[in-house]
Amino acid sequence: MAGYFTIMETLSYHDLSMVVKFGVQFGLWGMSVYFLGTEKHHQKYLEDIGSLELPGCFAMTETHHGSNVRGIETTATYNHQNKTFTIHTPHIHARKEYIGNAALHGQKATVFAKLILDGKDYGVSAFVVPLRDKSCKLHPGVTIEDCGRKMGLNGVDNGLIHFNQVVIPKDDMLDRYSSVNDEGRFESPITSDNRRFFTMLGTLVGGRIGIPRSGLSAAKTGLTIAIRYGDQRKQFGPEGGAEVPILNYRTHQRRLMPLLANAYALHFGLQYLTDRFLKRSEEEMQEIEALAAGLKAWATWNTTATLQECREACGGKGYLSENRIDALKNDTDIYTTFEGDNTVLLQLVAKSRLTEFKQEFSNMNMFTIVNYLAGQAKTSITEMNPIAVRNTDEEHLLDPEFQLSAFRYRERDILTSAAKRLKRHIDSGMDSFDAFNVCQHHLVMVSQAYVERILLEEFRTQIERVTDAGCRAVLKKLCDLFALSQIDKNKGWYLEQGYMEGVKTKAIRKLVNQLCWDIRQDAVPLVDAFDIPDKLLSAPIAVR
Amino acid sequence: MAGYFTIMETLSYHDLSMVVKFGVQFGLWGMSVYFLGTEKHHQKYLEDIGSLELPGCFAMTETHHGSNVRGIETTATYNHQNKTFTIHTPHIHARKEYIGNAALHGQKATVFAKLILDGKDYGVSAFVVPLRDKSCKLHPGVTIEDCGRKMGLNGVDNGLIHFNQVVIPKDDMLDRYSSVNDEGRFESPITSDNRRFFTMLGTLVGGRIGIPRSGLSAAKTGLTIAIRYGDQRKQFGPEGGAEVPILNYRTHQRRLMPLLANAYALHFGLQYLTDRFLKRSEEEMQEIEALAAGLKAWATWNTTATLQECREACGGKGYLSENRIDALKNDTDIYTTFEGDNTVLLQLVAKSRLTEFKQEFSNMNMFTIVNYLAGQAKTSITEMNPIAVRNTDEEHLLDPEFQLSAFRYRERDILTSAAKRLKRHIDSGMDSFDAFNVCQHHLVMVSQAYVERILLEEFRTQIERVTDAGCRAVLKKLCDLFALSQIDKNKGWYLEQGYMEGVKTKAIRKLVNQLCWDIRQDAVPLVDAFDIPDKLLSAPIAVR
Repeated sequence: MAGYFTIMETLSYHDLSMVVKFGVQFGLWGMSVYFLGTEKHHQKYLEDIGSLELPGCFAMTETHHGSNVRGIETTATYNHQNKTFTIHTPHIHARKEYIGNAALHGQKATVFAKLILDGKDYGVSAFVVPLRDKSCKLHPGVTIEDCGRKMGLNGVDNGLIHFNQVVIPKDDMLDRYSSVNDEGRFESPITSDNRRFFTMLGTLVGGRIGIPRSGLSAAKTGLTIAIRYGDQRKQFGPEGGAEVPILNYRTHQRRLMPLLANAYALHFGLQYLTDRFLKRSEEEMQEIEALAAGLKAWATWNTTATLQECREACGGKGYLSENRIDALKNDTDIYTTFEGDNTVLLQLVAKSRLTEFKQEFSNMNMFTIVNYLAGQAKTSITEMNPIAVRNTDEEHLLDPEFQLSAFRYRERDILTSAAKRLKRHIDSGMDSFDAFNVCQHHLVMVSQAYVERILLEEFRTQIERVTDAGCRAVLKKLCDLFALSQIDKNKGWYLEQGYMEGVKTKAIRKLVNQLCWDIRQDAVPLVDAFDIPDKLLSAPIAVR
Repeated sequence: MAGYFTIMETLSYHDLSMVVKFGVQFGLWGMSVYFLGTEKHHQKYLEDIGSLELPGCFAMTETHHGSNVRGIETTATYNHQNKTFTIHTPHIHARKEYIGNAALHGQKATVFAKLILDGKDYGVSAFVVPLRDKSCKLHPGVTIEDCGRKMGLNGVDNGLIHFNQVVIPKDDMLDRYSSVNDEGRFESPITSDNRRFFTMLGTLVGGRIGIPRSGLSAAKTGLTIAIRYGDQRKQFGPEGGAEVPILNYRTHQRRLMPLLANAYALHFGLQYLTDRFLKRSEEEMQEIEALAAGLKAWATWNTTATLQECREACGGKGYLSENRIDALKNDTDIYTTFEGDNTVLLQLVAKSRLTEFKQEFSNMNMFTIVNYLAGQAKTSITEMNPIAVRNTDEEHLLDPEFQLSAFRYRERDILTSAAKRLKRHIDSGMDSFDAFNVCQHHLVMVSQAYVERILLEEFRTQIERVTDAGCRAVLKKLCDLFALSQIDKNKGWYLEQGYMEGVKTKAIRKLVNQLCWDIRQDAVPLVDAFDIPDKLLSAPIAVR
């Protein structure tokens, strides 16, 4: 798995279509057989998948059901007489859509469908279904259409798949979490339908690690191009003097330096996520899933924002395809949607974070809640002493303890207030669906604050491991910029809470400007340190 | 001119490359001959330009000089013996770059070059220079290269032009603002080099009206597609209930409704700008130029942001080229760069706004400044009475007077503090280039606050003219959303200043959510009111 992520990240320095083809084949098709199947499937398929002998697809999304996977309508009906399943698309809106590798190369697919047994619906299961033979002739009953031109990733053959009563042997049900026994009855090691469904989806968390790492590579590439260009491109200057590099302009620094800091923060944060995933135990899975979903959303939005700034920072040159920001931007634009729509993912993360209040929710145990919240309030009061809220000393603002406390306070307070708000709505008789809907925007903030706290903690942890003093000093500055620019972005919230006063947020803004100026001096070495080979970078304006 | 802008705006509902070809031919090539030339040029060229008999270009930007037009290096050397100019590109970086219509169709170009007379440089002037004959054969000495593939606008033949000692008759100098007399000496109705340069550029302000209007059309198209889709597309729902339209989700509303309000605000704001421009007098030109530059920047960034949200709000469907957000987004991405880079434009706007402090700057008349600032402070104190800063009544927050006061206070305060800050730096001996650089980020805010105040004022003015009560009520809600979402976006600033307290900004956030919910009910009619013909809209997901 570690190698898989590294390859995905490295390929992403140059060609994103290749990355997605790679991810579909090994990550989605291969890993779904590996995690959802059992020994017999591993024996039958894994070697051919790994050697690319057997190109395949991952057919989950349907036209009418993307985010709401549970609502998919493709059926897999069991026939006990001949021990087969019949895979069927009931109507045009239930076709599998956007399926990578489908339009040209896929020979088989992991198909998600509702298992129907004796007329009863047992929920979503996965099946290996043939699409084409080795000569690329379509399997009888299978119809495939190309999705047509896309904004990016046109090197990926996304397709629409329609199944018309396609019969497969019983053994091709991926039966790790649900199966049909010899008597033709449903069996599962997990009795709760809900838990089974989420356990199945949980095995696919790897995609939510690969995608943000790929997106980060694209952002690093964009930053390398824009920062090298900004260091060389000159425009205007003092009266009668020489023109100056555009990266010496304060607005240019404000646009690019915080994004450079974000790239470093994400580099460490995604490394941490990967490590946690590789060493995972069963008990940690829920936390790791939330971490992956949260970081996936934060990182991919950051990629979109970074590449947009890089395009604009390179002016007309950034618009020319030869300088590659075009392709990087358009190829990664879908990252905020696939492997889980970011907004939907952040709702899931928030719900996972709220589980610490679950007990109180279900029991309506006011005493526990009040006690807990009182504990929160006490912490806050200690932190919010009148000196701290007005402290503008540089030493204080650059103190990792202050920064971490501010991030943690924000995370905790938003989570607590979201819980209280939800509880208030539910107590007043509101349907829980509506209560969560009313608080959606609040819940997005819960998840963002959580991710940002993790990113800051991991950035700090990594700096402590650096032994070279010069390198450490530069990373410390980047980390300060990451921390303070996040606080500056959220200053409205801190001021509303009374956690800081105006003098302090103004001092932070000033320090953010100063850090941008300081880091500009090391900006070129800092992107060179990404070590993207010039051949992959391949943008004429980025040539040193 | 009114017709020109209307055509540009209307064509923008469908094909942006056509818009740019149209804008280059009539707006840039035609209008440069019209405004920079005199009667003889009008007689000779305008009819053929207007009938498309004579396709042409506008050759200002050079590889090494885009924003800094004064730094261009192409030369036009006068030869008195034979009454000609020799147009010459001194080196490869002085080639004219990104020139629309150059790679394929342009037969002549308005070329900006430094006028050299008896070895002396008289600054930038404009000349009509041949590129090709009617059969498209290149003129001797002219070399043209295609700029290659771009992120968008690939229907425009952008080219690089190199002039190797191209000789043109003296009469082809566009001589309204600078000319060479019969004795071979330089003449101009404007003696100051600086004023002449800015007067010449000022005549081209029309481009900064056409581009934001075109960008707004693209944003309206994107919103129509995304809002119609969001109203039809269903996903998830209450336990056991039917799925709900995604536009019923609060985060979806928060993403799209404020952008819908922005589109209406810009619709009225750009109408106001156009009217001011069409009825302009000489004395108003500086103000109109600032208004155009500011609105161009605000509107084109808003287009980029709107189309990004629309893409994401349509999920995978938004990524398919057939649904058109792809092309709209990629074609308009350069709008933030061309006709003046937005960041550079906002610096110009701020400098123009600061001219009210100019007197004080040059005279260092502290008495006047202190008096003026004291006047400012008095106003602020009246507004910031302890009741107003904590007033959370809905009636108060929806009162146009409160909203306008908040916008005006912000505009005035940021302008005043920027002036003070600049003065402090200059007084302490800092070079004025450095002083302006240190304050760049502050100056961007000066311009944004100015544009936002104008937008709110014009939105209010237009509502007052609406006679239909129902229509008026809906527009009032949209305008409230525009005003309050801008205040919410800037709440950090308002809290820092003590203009509002946390209770008030929280009440505003709540009201923004409520307004998004209310406007969602009318969202489809509100985009239908843009009245974009379905044939032009042409996105399968937007079909009613």
